[in-house]
Amino acid sequence: MSSPPPTPLLVDIHTHIYPPSYISLLSARSTVPYIHRPADNDNDETADARLIILPSDDEPSKPRHQRGRPLDRSYSSLAAKRAFMARHGIAISVISLANPWLDFLVDDLATSAPRIAADLNDELDRECAAFNDHDRTLVGSPSGQKLYAFATLPVTAAVPAVVAEIHRVRALRHVRGVILSTAGLRGAGLADARMDAVWDALSETQTLVFLHPHYGLPDAAYYGTGTGTAAGSDSGHVLPLALGFPLETTIALTRLYLAGTFDRFPELRLLLAHAGGALPFLAGRVDSCVRHERAFAPCTPGGQRSGPARSIWDVLRSNVYLDAVVYATPALKAAVDAAGGDRVLFGTDHPFFPPIGDDDGQGKWESVQMNVRAIERAFGDGGDGHGLATASAILGGNAVRILGLDLD
Amino acid sequence: MSSPPPTPLLVDIHTHIYPPSYISLLSARSTVPYIHRPADNDNDETADARLIILPSDDEPSKPRHQRGRPLDRSYSSLAAKRAFMARHGIAISVISLANPWLDFLVDDLATSAPRIAADLNDELDRECAAFNDHDRTLVGSPSGQKLYAFATLPVTAAVPAVVAEIHRVRALRHVRGVILSTAGLRGAGLADARMDAVWDALSETQTLVFLHPHYGLPDAAYYGTGTGTAAGSDSGHVLPLALGFPLETTIALTRLYLAGTFDRFPELRLLLAHAGGALPFLAGRVDSCVRHERAFAPCTPGGQRSGPARSIWDVLRSNVYLDAVVYATPALKAAVDAAGGDRVLFGTDHPFFPPIGDDDGQGKWESVQMNVRAIERAFGDGGDGHGLATASAILGGNAVRILGLDLD
Repeated sequence: MSSPPPTPLLVDIHTHIYPPSYISLLSARSTVPYIHRPADNDNDETADARLIILPSDDEPSKPRHQRGRPLDRSYSSLAAKRAFMARHGIAISVISLANPWLDFLVDDLATSAPRIAADLNDELDRECAAFNDHDRTLVGSPSGQKLYAFATLPVTAAVPAVVAEIHRVRALRHVRGVILSTAGLRGAGLADARMDAVWDALSETQTLVFLHPHYGLPDAAYYGTGTGTAAGSDSGHVLPLALGFPLETTIALTRLYLAGTFDRFPELRLLLAHAGGALPFLAGRVDSCVRHERAFAPCTPGGQRSGPARSIWDVLRSNVYLDAVVYATPALKAAVDAAGGDRVLFGTDHPFFPPIGDDDGQGKWESVQMNVRAIERAFGDGGDGHGLATASAILGGNAVRILGLDLD
Repeated sequence: MSSPPPTPLLVDIHTHIYPPSYISLLSARSTVPYIHRPADNDNDETADARLIILPSDDEPSKPRHQRGRPLDRSYSSLAAKRAFMARHGIAISVISLANPWLDFLVDDLATSAPRIAADLNDELDRECAAFNDHDRTLVGSPSGQKLYAFATLPVTAAVPAVVAEIHRVRALRHVRGVILSTAGLRGAGLADARMDAVWDALSETQTLVFLHPHYGLPDAAYYGTGTGTAAGSDSGHVLPLALGFPLETTIALTRLYLAGTFDRFPELRLLLAHAGGALPFLAGRVDSCVRHERAFAPCTPGGQRSGPARSIWDVLRSNVYLDAVVYATPALKAAVDAAGGDRVLFGTDHPFFPPIGDDDGQGKWESVQMNVRAIERAFGDGGDGHGLATASAILGGNAVRILGLDLD
């Protein structure tokens, strides 16, 4: 009888935190993104506080204390992160600031954006150090829990300041890349020409970019045909989170591709949130539309085609990594088919998607288990002799290798 | 030695035509959708004519004779359809009016919409009959080529007229369902409450709905974050066709699902264009977001959840069929994983996506071959003993069974 295979190392590369200084930043604001605290709870940092980060969260028809979502300690507490990791057997988490990062800094605050970003990144690095030290000094604590981090960029600052922060965070011991939204520099989008200096710095420093959505789609995308009514719009966050987020990522990456970015920066490495949105599924259609696009056809017989030089499949298999936050096997298998089993990485999206109502504080989160089960169902049976190895790679091995994580 | 398996029957359920009366309708217009003919070519029905159907086609910066796409005979000629079918070994095509159908009829024309739709549907049925008779009477013609059709609904007319046409087309010998856009009745969208009478009639008559995109996404979805520029917007139809179309379908179906339509109409049957857009990939995320949506949580402990009662997976496996127009294996396999190998149907999207430049009029179209190869690569090796049967079902068997096609 063979012994059961060892439990694979579980690494969570999609897990967010709002460090204390960021909580302060949002608490000082009253427009999205902001934190609303009922006046009589000023002494309690989180009780009844609401986190209002999405434009769709800030519905004027609702009183503020019902907008957005409850801000509990899981959003900012490392102890909560530690308990979550222990609950789910996660050995290593690569934490990142959650949306909307520093995208919203404007006007006079933008001039201090480089300082705010540097302070935040230093704070994250210190938090990782404290977390990792904690484990080493506590007798009998679950061993091996470790944190790493993705840094945040001051995207509203001048380009040289953004580039400088990319270089600066390399010296931070726990930083393994940067998280970036689809808004690019001052909301100009990722395909904006000014981003080339950023891609250049990221390529030169071999910095991995964790590309994450926040903006979703304009309301007109959901309700906009003709006299479009908002029927079905009482479904809370479902449309903006289930569709808006992944479709935003899909559009951003496709525009980046069409703008020739991966031709100019063949070393660029992007980790796409939510397995690329819908890109693994739509890449064939992108490929076909590019091949059949008259605007790209040569103007003269035998002339050169315009448009992107590399195929989207080549980009998926050379420049792109995908997280495994897809909640089902059909998408997980498509992600692996598209990018390769060595380029898909487990994530939880903690602290988002907590259990509703029936959480006893002990059990595993359904949102996490949906992703674990998708991997196990797709590859856990070892059917083709490579299944178990692929599952193990997705659950943790790929992250260790790609992000250079230290297991000791 | 076993003999090679017989070539499977090839049935194309996604193939469009603009019959002569529809060409006349568009030719009489000068706003989208319309056909532009240079004045000196009035005597030639198609030479240099342009088909301008998408809002993005009608760029004021371009002269009209460069807008949209060339309108060649493949858009309206049954002889061209026959030649295309012969080229690719397609035995049966289920033709449908191409976008934007009759969605654009307004004002006084809307009062005649029922008549225009009825005439169009009768015309399509007659065209099928003539096509099928042709084969039977021509000695030495390729045998077995047959046409069926999806009918068009007068969606700008009063609801009873729409319902009446659903009932009327049942008497047309070649009609096997209706094609519908995401705009619903007078552009109010598919989740609009007035659609219930239409879903009811479609369910009662067991009429299959071929749901097809046309409107894509608003420009702001591509260029809208912050000061978003239109960098990469010189990529012709790539964004609206590669992303806009499938994302529109994904949104429409998800809104329909969230509005409880499949709870109220459990017998409804929808064939989704382009394999559901991105739904097979995003269904897990829709499922998770619905499960984790606070707006759906019961207001009292033990109370009832609101939101859709059935899971999106149940809908995919009971109410939905997917075409196989995805151009790559990862998406094709995800479509089969999501809906089942007995619910995915081959299509070509002819006459769209013709070869550019190098078509000799004899070879197979690359856009078609991409879809054939995706099926062969995913299932053609019979790896698990069911592969060849699945490939054969997708290529034609499913269409024959689901649409009740007569092979004689």
